[in-house]
Amino acid sequence: MAGSSFGTLFRVSTFGESHGPAVGCVIDGCPAGVLLTVEDIRRDLRRRRPGGGAGTSPRHEDDEPEILSGVYEEKTLGTPIAIIIRNRDQRSGDYDTLKELYRPGHADWTWELKYGLRDPRGGGRSSGRETAARVAAGAVARAVLASQGIAIRAWTAAMGGISAPLPGHGDFDLAEADLNYLRVPGRDAAARIEKRLAELKEEGDSAGGLVSCVVSGIPRGLGEPVFDKLPALLGQGILSIGACKGVQFGAGFAAAGLTGSVNNDIPVPGAAPSPGPPALSFKTNNAGGTLGGISTGMNLEFQAAFKPVASISRPQKTVDRRGMVRDLSVPGRHDVCIVPRVVPVVEAMTALVLADLALRHRAAVIGTAP
Amino acid sequence: MAGSSFGTLFRVSTFGESHGPAVGCVIDGCPAGVLLTVEDIRRDLRRRRPGGGAGTSPRHEDDEPEILSGVYEEKTLGTPIAIIIRNRDQRSGDYDTLKELYRPGHADWTWELKYGLRDPRGGGRSSGRETAARVAAGAVARAVLASQGIAIRAWTAAMGGISAPLPGHGDFDLAEADLNYLRVPGRDAAARIEKRLAELKEEGDSAGGLVSCVVSGIPRGLGEPVFDKLPALLGQGILSIGACKGVQFGAGFAAAGLTGSVNNDIPVPGAAPSPGPPALSFKTNNAGGTLGGISTGMNLEFQAAFKPVASISRPQKTVDRRGMVRDLSVPGRHDVCIVPRVVPVVEAMTALVLADLALRHRAAVIGTAP
Amino acid sequence: MAGSSFGTLFRVSTFGESHGPAVGCVIDGCPAGVLLTVEDIRRDLRRRRPGGGAGTSPRHEDDEPEILSGVYEEKTLGTPIAIIIRNRDQRSGDYDTLKELYRPGHADWTWELKYGLRDPRGGGRSSGRETAARVAAGAVARAVLASQGIAIRAWTAAMGGISAPLPGHGDFDLAEADLNYLRVPGRDAAARIEKRLAELKEEGDSAGGLVSCVVSGIPRGLGEPVFDKLPALLGQGILSIGACKGVQFGAGFAAAGLTGSVNNDIPVPGAAPSPGPPALSFKTNNAGGTLGGISTGMNLEFQAAFKPVASISRPQKTVDRRGMVRDLSVPGRHDVCIVPRVVPVVEAMTALVLADLALRHRAAVIGTAP
Amino acid sequence: MAGSSFGTLFRVSTFGESHGPAVGCVIDGCPAGVLLTVEDIRRDLRRRRPGGGAGTSPRHEDDEPEILSGVYEEKTLGTPIAIIIRNRDQRSGDYDTLKELYRPGHADWTWELKYGLRDPRGGGRSSGRETAARVAAGAVARAVLASQGIAIRAWTAAMGGISAPLPGHGDFDLAEADLNYLRVPGRDAAARIEKRLAELKEEGDSAGGLVSCVVSGIPRGLGEPVFDKLPALLGQGILSIGACKGVQFGAGFAAAGLTGSVNNDIPVPGAAPSPGPPALSFKTNNAGGTLGGISTGMNLEFQAAFKPVASISRPQKTVDRRGMVRDLSVPGRHDVCIVPRVVPVVEAMTALVLADLALRHRAAVIGTAP
Repeated sequence: MAGSSFGTLFRVSTFGESHGPAVGCVIDGCPAGVLLTVEDIRRDLRRRRPGGGAGTSPRHEDDEPEILSGVYEEKTLGTPIAIIIRNRDQRSGDYDTLKELYRPGHADWTWELKYGLRDPRGGGRSSGRETAARVAAGAVARAVLASQGIAIRAWTAAMGGISAPLPGHGDFDLAEADLNYLRVPGRDAAARIEKRLAELKEEGDSAGGLVSCVVSGIPRGLGEPVFDKLPALLGQGILSIGACKGVQFGAGFAAAGLTGSVNNDIPVPGAAPSPGPPALSFKTNNAGGTLGGISTGMNLEFQAAFKPVASISRPQKTVDRRGMVRDLSVPGRHDVCIVPRVVPVVEAMTALVLADLALRHRAAVIGTAP
Repeated sequence: MAGSSFGTLFRVSTFGESHGPAVGCVIDGCPAGVLLTVEDIRRDLRRRRPGGGAGTSPRHEDDEPEILSGVYEEKTLGTPIAIIIRNRDQRSGDYDTLKELYRPGHADWTWELKYGLRDPRGGGRSSGRETAARVAAGAVARAVLASQGIAIRAWTAAMGGISAPLPGHGDFDLAEADLNYLRVPGRDAAARIEKRLAELKEEGDSAGGLVSCVVSGIPRGLGEPVFDKLPALLGQGILSIGACKGVQFGAGFAAAGLTGSVNNDIPVPGAAPSPGPPALSFKTNNAGGTLGGISTGMNLEFQAAFKPVASISRPQKTVDRRGMVRDLSVPGRHDVCIVPRVVPVVEAMTALVLADLALRHRAAVIGTAP
Repeated sequence: MAGSSFGTLFRVSTFGESHGPAVGCVIDGCPAGVLLTVEDIRRDLRRRRPGGGAGTSPRHEDDEPEILSGVYEEKTLGTPIAIIIRNRDQRSGDYDTLKELYRPGHADWTWELKYGLRDPRGGGRSSGRETAARVAAGAVARAVLASQGIAIRAWTAAMGGISAPLPGHGDFDLAEADLNYLRVPGRDAAARIEKRLAELKEEGDSAGGLVSCVVSGIPRGLGEPVFDKLPALLGQGILSIGACKGVQFGAGFAAAGLTGSVNNDIPVPGAAPSPGPPALSFKTNNAGGTLGGISTGMNLEFQAAFKPVASISRPQKTVDRRGMVRDLSVPGRHDVCIVPRVVPVVEAMTALVLADLALRHRAAVIGTAP
Repeated sequence: MAGSSFGTLFRVSTFGESHGPAVGCVIDGCPAGVLLTVEDIRRDLRRRRPGGGAGTSPRHEDDEPEILSGVYEEKTLGTPIAIIIRNRDQRSGDYDTLKELYRPGHADWTWELKYGLRDPRGGGRSSGRETAARVAAGAVARAVLASQGIAIRAWTAAMGGISAPLPGHGDFDLAEADLNYLRVPGRDAAARIEKRLAELKEEGDSAGGLVSCVVSGIPRGLGEPVFDKLPALLGQGILSIGACKGVQFGAGFAAAGLTGSVNNDIPVPGAAPSPGPPALSFKTNNAGGTLGGISTGMNLEFQAAFKPVASISRPQKTVDRRGMVRDLSVPGRHDVCIVPRVVPVVEAMTALVLADLALRHRAAVIGTAP
C-alpha cells in the first residue's frame, strides 16, 4: 500500500495523474442507506474550482463526476463507491519545457528519486489536481455526517501576509466567505488581500496563507486513543495536503506559552441529564474540542498553514536532469495563492476523518453490540 | 483496532494502564538481524524519567524493561518483539479522592463517555505513563535506523514562555541539553527557565512549551504520497502524544506569510554523481527536509507545541460524576512542565515513523524486487 | 473497510455492481517500473469470458479495460493503477421478476439482511461479474511476477462429477486446457464432461467442480508467519471467490489419513551452493510447496472446490420478500457450470497473493535495507 | 507488519518463541464492558494442554496466564488487553543436537532462509507452543461472543485414519469429546483411535486427522463481501494453524460433485416476523451457514485437515546446515497426533474471526450510526 489510501473503516483510495485520463476515488466502507446524488459531489467540486480574479489559475475543468458503483436509486448500497472525474483540459504541451528540469519547491526530483521515473505532465500525481478526488470522496463523507447534524466549515484566515478577521471579531462573516472567491470571511480583508495578490501577480510572485476550520454538531466520544486520537488523524489528513507546513488545534502554539490555570477549560454542568456520565460543557475551548484525543461535543477548531505557491514566473535558478544549473521562469496556468482552493480540501479531509471515527466509535462498547 | 497500534510494516502496539501490572509494546515487523540489547531500551527509558529539580514529578519508577520475545543472542529474529515494563510504584490511594471528579484538562470525562467506564487510578491508559511503552518501541526503531546512519535529536525549544536559543544562535549547544534535566540547549536559558518553573511551582501552577527535533542522515526517498507523506505520518505520530496542540515543519506557520520567491529552496548540484537522478542539495531548508512528502536528504526539521500540565495544585472549579460543581486542588506527584520528559517521546515517535517508511520504501521500485 | 480490499502492500480494491455503469479496481502499491499494457489485461479478461458451448452463459460482454491512472508510456509509475470495465450488456429487464424473490443458493436475502437494501439487477455486487475486476487486477500482479520467472497455471480438475486426468497421468496436457473452452487438460475427459453438461442443461440443472493450480518458479521465503502464512492468505483469496466451498494444499485432506513417515517430504541437497543456508530440494511435495507457511521453492500446489451453479431452470420452491412460499424457475443467461470461468479467477487471486507477499518479504531482513 | 497480527477491529497480535521467556498476545479493539476474568483464559488453556495417554507430549506447562492490561475490576476497559504466559519448562538441551539439522516436515530451513537466522530451541516461533497465545486471545473473543449467545464447538472427526461418528449418527456425543483426552465424540471410536495411536507410538510414527467445528447462535449478517467473506477470513484463520492442509465449509469438496437441484438449500419462512426482510430458515445446510459470504443464521459448519506430526522417532534422512545428508531420529517430547490439542485452537481462531466480523458488521448501515 503506497500511501494513496486513507481511513480504517470508511476507507478511501484516490488515484489519477494531473494529465492522465481521469482522477477519482473508491470508498470501501461507506454504510448502506445514505442518501447520495451526483449533485452532492458536483457541489463540493465547484467550491474547489478556480474562482476567477487575480489569485487563481485559468485552467478550466468541468470537473464532472461520474458515480460508477455503490449507489442505487440515490442510496448507498454498502458496497464500494467509485467516482471518476475525467481530465478534459490536458494541454501537456505546456509542460514539455519542464520535462528536463526540477522545479524549485516541487516534487519533481524527489518523485524521480523515489520511483526511478515520473509522469512529467503537470506534476503527474503530485499535482494539486489530485485533490479533486479528495473533494469527491469528502462529499460522500459529508453525506454520512449530515444525517448526524455535523457541519464542517473552513475559510481563508490569512493570505499574502494579511489576516482575515477572527470569529466574533471585526466584520467576521462566514456568509461573506461564500460570496468572494478568496473565501475570506470579511469584506475589508478580502479587498486588501485581493489587492495584495494583484501586486504579487504583477511581480511574478506568489503567496501562502492560513486556513481555519470549525466543526459544529460533533458527537461526543469520537477519537481512538492512543495513536488515532482525533487531532492526530486529522493532523495526518491535513498535513497530507500538498503545501501544508503546519497544523494547530484550539489554542495551538499559543498554548505552549500559557500556564495551566489559564489554559485549562473549566467544565460546567450541561443542559440535560443523560444516561451514563453527566452532560458537561466548558467555559472556554482552548482544547479545540477534544480531551485525550476524544471529542467533547464542543466545536472542533483547528488551523493549517500553507506555503506560497512554488510556481512563480519570476526567474529562479534550478538544476536539470543532467545536474546542470539552469534558469527557470515557470509558465503555465498557476494560482498566485492556493489557499482559497484548499479550503474545500480541508473540509473534505475533515469529513473523511470524522466519518471514519464515527464508524470506529461504534465498536467501542459491548452493550450496543449487534 | 482501537487506536493503540501504529505503523504499516514496522507496526507497534502499546498497552498498559498507569497503575495496572505493566505497560509495554509489541512490534510486529522488525526486520531480522538487527543488533538489540536490553541496554539499548534502558538507555532511552532513562532519558524519559523525571530528572529531578523543580520541574518534574517525584514519582519513582525503575522502568526496567524485559524483552519477552523476538530477540535471540542479541539479534532480532524477524518475529514480534514484546517488551514489558512493570509498574512498581502504584500508590493508587493518591487517586481515591479523584475517582468521583472530572479533572479539568484531563480525559477523565471523555474516557468515561466513550467507554462507559474507566480505570480511575492515575488516569489509567490516558496517563503519560503510556509513553514509556512508546519510548521502548522507539529504541527498537532506533536500532534499525542506526545501521543507516540516521540520527534523531530533540530538545526543549521553549518552556514557561521562555525560549531556548535557536540552532546556530546564542549559546545553542545540544550537548548542554543532555547535561541539564530540562533538555534546554543553552545554559542561560536553562537557568532562566528553571527559575520560572520554580515560581510556577510556588504558585501551584504549570507551564507548557515547545520541542524541536532535527533528523540528520535521513536517506532520500522516504515518504509515501498521497496520504502517507512523511510529514503527514510524523504529524499523526507527534499529535498523538498527549498535550500536543500543534506541529510545524521547516518554516512552518511562518511560511504562510512568505512569498514564493523567498520561501522556495533553490536546488544546487550535489557532491557526487549517482545512478538515476543527479544528487541535489538545497541552498535553504524552508521545506524542512521533504518535497511532496518525500525526504530530500536535507535535515528533517520540525517543532511541536505542548499545552501546560493540566494538574495544578491551585484551586479550580470542576464537576463531579453526579453533575455537581466541586472545588478541586490536584494533589499527587505531578510535573510542573512535561516538556523535558516529552523530548525522548518525540524522538521515539520520529524513529517509529522513519523505520516504517524505510521498510515501506523498499517496495516502491520493481528493479530491486526479490 | 467493508471487505472489497485485499492485500497489505500490493493492495487492490475492487468495485462495481453487475448492472451498474462499470466494474473495476484500484491497485495501491504496485511498484514503479513494471512493463504494463492494456493488452496484458485484455488477454486475461478474455480467458474469463464465456467460451461458448453447452456450459457457459450467452451474456456477451466486450470486457474492454481502460487504464485510468498509474501507467505512463507503458510503465507503472508507482502510483495507484485504476482500471475500469464498462458494463455494456445491461438488460436489467431480465431480472425484474426476480426482484421480489430470494433465489435459493444466492445472496439476495443475506445481502438485504445485512445492508437493508440491495441492487436487485443481476445480483448486484454479489454477481460473478465482480470477478472481472479481480482478473484485471490479477493481470497487473502477473506483470509484477513475470519479471521474477513465476508462472501460475490453473485448470478444471473435475466437473459434473467427472475427473480430468491428474498431472503426469493419462492424457494430462495443459496445452489441451487452453484448446477446449472447459479448461480440461485431457481430450477424453473434456468430451465426457461436455456430454454431461449437455445432459444437465437439458435437465435444467447445473454442475460444480474442482480447480487445480500449480505455481512454478516461486522464490523461496515467501509467506509471513504466523497468521499470514502463504497457504493462509491464499486460502482467504480462493475462498473469497463466490461458490468456493473448500481449498486444500499439497496432499490436502488425504494427508490427514497418512502417517508422518509417509507424509514427510525428505530434503535432499540442492543443485547449487548459495550464501546462507544450503539449497535444498525435496523427494516428494506432499506439503504443496510451503513449510511453516513459507515457500520452499518447490511448486506451489493447491485445489479448490466449487459448488454447482445456484441458478437452474428446474422449478424450485423459495420465499418472497413478504415471507410467502413461491415457485421459481430461474430464467436469464446462466452458466451450467462456472468452473471454466473460475480458472482465470483462481489464477488472478494467486497472483495477487504472491505479488503482495513478494513485496512484504523484502522487509524481512535488515542486511538488505535501503 | 510481519504476519503475527490478525483481524481488523478486534485485532490480536501474538508473540513469543517456544523457549523464550514467554508467549502472549495483545488485543487492540476489544469493546469496553465485557466481563472477563483470568479464569476464563485459564479454562481454555487447560483444554489445549497435553491430556495424557499415548497420543500427547509429556512436556509439562502450567500455562498460567497473566493479564497485564485492559481489564479493571473484571471488566474490559476498551483498551488493549495484554496477556502473557511464561514458558516454565524450557529444557533447551533437548534440542542441542537438532541445531545443525533441518528436520523433515518442519520450518527450520525455510525460517533460516527467510530471516537469515533462527531460534533453534524447540522450533522457536514456528513451534506449536505459539498457539497458547491464540487460545488466550480466543478466550477473550469468546467472552465477547458469549453475551450474544454464540457457542463454538470443535471436536476430533478423524485421527490415524479412523473416523469418529458424524453428528446425528452412531454414538455421536459431544459431551463424550470432553471426557476423553482425544476429543473424540464417541466412545467406540475413541477406543479404536487410542489403540491406533499406541501402535503408531510403538512404531515411532505419527498420525494426522480431521477437526470439525459447529457454531450455533450465530447472528445473521456477519461477513464482509467481497474478500472478507466469513468463510474466507475463517479459512485464513484455520489455514494459519501449523500443519493445516485444507478446510471445507458445509458440503465442502463433496459439493463439487453435486447438481444445483440437490445442493441448493431451499428457504422456508422462519418462525417470527422481523423488521426488514422476513425471517428465513433453510431445509438443508449444504452451504454451511453462509450465503455470499454472509451468515444466514443457520449453524456455521466446517472441517479442517491436519497433516501427521512431523517429528517421529523412526529414522529419517535429512540434510544439515552444511548441506550434508544426515540420519535423524527425533528425540524429545512430541505428540503422536496433534489433533486433540488443535481442537481448542480451531475454536479460538473461529472466535477471533467472529468477534472481528461482529464488530465490523456494526458499521454496515447508517440508520444505526452513533
